Amino acid sequence: MSSMEAVFAGYEQRLAELKASTNPLADGVAWVAGEMVPLAEARIPLMDQGFLRSDLTYDVPAIWDGRFFRLDDHLDRLERSCAKLRLRSPLDRASIRATLVEMAAMSGIRDAFVCLIVTRGLKQVRGNRPEDLANNLYMFVAPYVWVVPPEMQRTGAPAIVTRTVRRTPPGAFDPTVKNLQWGDFTRGLIEAQDRDAVYPLLPDGDGNLTEGAGYNIVLVKDGVLYTPERGVLEGVTRKTVMEIAAAKGIEVRMEHVPVDLAYRCDELFFCTTAAGIMPVTTLDGQPVGGGQVGPITRQIWEAYWDLHHDPKLSFAIDAH
Amino acid sequence: MSSMEAVFAGYEQRLAELKASTNPLADGVAWVAGEMVPLAEARIPLMDQGFLRSDLTYDVPAIWDGRFFRLDDHLDRLERSCAKLRLRSPLDRASIRATLVEMAAMSGIRDAFVCLIVTRGLKQVRGNRPEDLANNLYMFVAPYVWVVPPEMQRTGAPAIVTRTVRRTPPGAFDPTVKNLQWGDFTRGLIEAQDRDAVYPLLPDGDGNLTEGAGYNIVLVKDGVLYTPERGVLEGVTRKTVMEIAAAKGIEVRMEHVPVDLAYRCDELFFCTTAAGIMPVTTLDGQPVGGGQVGPITRQIWEAYWDLHHDPKLSFAIDAH
Ligand SMILES: Cc1ncc(COP(=O)(O)O)c(C=O)c1O
Ligand SMILES: Cc1ncc(COP(=O)(O)O)c(C=O)c1O
Repeated sequence: MSSMEAVFAGYEQRLAELKASTNPLADGVAWVAGEMVPLAEARIPLMDQGFLRSDLTYDVPAIWDGRFFRLDDHLDRLERSCAKLRLRSPLDRASIRATLVEMAAMSGIRDAFVCLIVTRGLKQVRGNRPEDLANNLYMFVAPYVWVVPPEMQRTGAPAIVTRTVRRTPPGAFDPTVKNLQWGDFTRGLIEAQDRDAVYPLLPDGDGNLTEGAGYNIVLVKDGVLYTPERGVLEGVTRKTVMEIAAAKGIEVRMEHVPVDLAYRCDELFFCTTAAGIMPVTTLDGQPVGGGQVGPITRQIWEAYWDLHHDPKLSFAIDAH
Repeated sequence: MSSMEAVFAGYEQRLAELKASTNPLADGVAWVAGEMVPLAEARIPLMDQGFLRSDLTYDVPAIWDGRFFRLDDHLDRLERSCAKLRLRSPLDRASIRATLVEMAAMSGIRDAFVCLIVTRGLKQVRGNRPEDLANNLYMFVAPYVWVVPPEMQRTGAPAIVTRTVRRTPPGAFDPTVKNLQWGDFTRGLIEAQDRDAVYPLLPDGDGNLTEGAGYNIVLVKDGVLYTPERGVLEGVTRKTVMEIAAAKGIEVRMEHVPVDLAYRCDELFFCTTAAGIMPVTTLDGQPVGGGQVGPITRQIWEAYWDLHHDPKLSFAIDAH
């Protein structure tokens, strides 16, 4: 079992190597209209409907220790999201895979945040059938992003349940379509800062919890995991958590999770591709459970990072 | 009184002149990071949070027959939107005004759709206080956009009340902050196409009407105007409609407008800067009132375009 310290030590060492690299793509590489460019120089048309109407979907797989993790789960979800919005990627799946692997190899980044964005393109749907439009794809591979940084994962993150904002309801926008209409999350992040915390957890407006600014949430109560069924993204990390729990014989209930349960649970964690399993130890300024990273969270944390070397769920960049 | 035909004839003539122009900016000019470029060539950083999280606000004033219309109302609203999102334009108001006038003059466009977008910039709010971030501004001046084209204004547009999507509620995102998180509107536009119409009208999920994909809505019933109070943008065009109504002694009620009223009103119109007053003559495939552009809609239509030459509400580009 990889302990937290071993996982972070390996990462820190690879990061030090990346920082010492003179590769001009080491800070990130983007793919725009068939060209590879350093990420900081990447530009998109101002008139892209992805900017002008946030008419897009996206996905974020990660590379960890030189291996793509669950890439196909992310590509599957991207395809489902595109279908729901009637978008089509201009590159087929095989080309996307090959290009991403090439980008990772070229950049030398061994722990990466990988982003694929499919936008409506230069024309809007008003007056045009979606099927007739040429959609755009943008991709980038950047150094790994930590929604909760390592030092904070050790002791647990401070969260709030927002009171000035609710999650956008599924009837207004389907949250299973991964999207960048982050107005509710941005408001939640600002509220969290104002309340001396960092991480918002958004209620659904009907007394239930949903998710946060880029992460699903999982509560532990009396040895059972609870996670919201409705109004959230079907996270790949959460799916992994559920598989880990199943393997360990821990019960998981995906159902309506009342806001109230967050205040009386034993453990609480967030999960996302860009940080993994993120223990939360204070909520609204009060300790969650014992106020420490809990034993079930820790078990899942360790199993989660172990799986990153499992050839059933990951593959090495170099081998491709 | 300018009749519909006179207004459109003047416009068509100016448009023909614009199309004959050899000015390289005649198709639109953008201002990006202090540079003026042809609109089709304008690019923004891929990493701008305006793209990556739709973390932005914007506004759209118009130029009509060489005159800016209610520019200060739009700049006031943009400032209010920025304050609500804790954004600050990197250019002050006087510089924005001067730059827009210069762009219009340089392009030779005499009927223009003008767009100002203030984004969070290259860094996100997670981990950064909004006050510490450098926000970005993008502006462009393009040929006038008709949400409902002239030929359709003559007979009236076909609309639907959406049944697959509701408007994002104010608790999830404040709709008085003009924004580009158009997922609900885009879904509505696609539903409208699927139902052989063009223009969606979104309910609020609680039995009331809100607005549509870029326009406020006004219903006429027994000589009174009704327009939704909650869950909508405070449109400048609608404000003008209310002023026109007040001057003509027509009563206006801004209140909760039940969805049901749309099916039993006498007249219905949309209003927005990018098309003015847009008569709607069919709803869900059935005629609205008599199925013709109604008399009150027509009166307001004519008064609206007349006001574009009123020096209290507009100023000539050339004079600046
Ligand atoms: C809103 C939201 N929920 C949940 C997640 C977690 O999804 P995944 O585990 O697939 O990264 C994300 C990821 O960015 C997200 O944006
Ligand atoms: C959602 C929405 N409502 C209403 C309007 C009309 O506002 P205005 O009359 O100020 O152009 C717009 C304009 O784009 C809009 O986007």
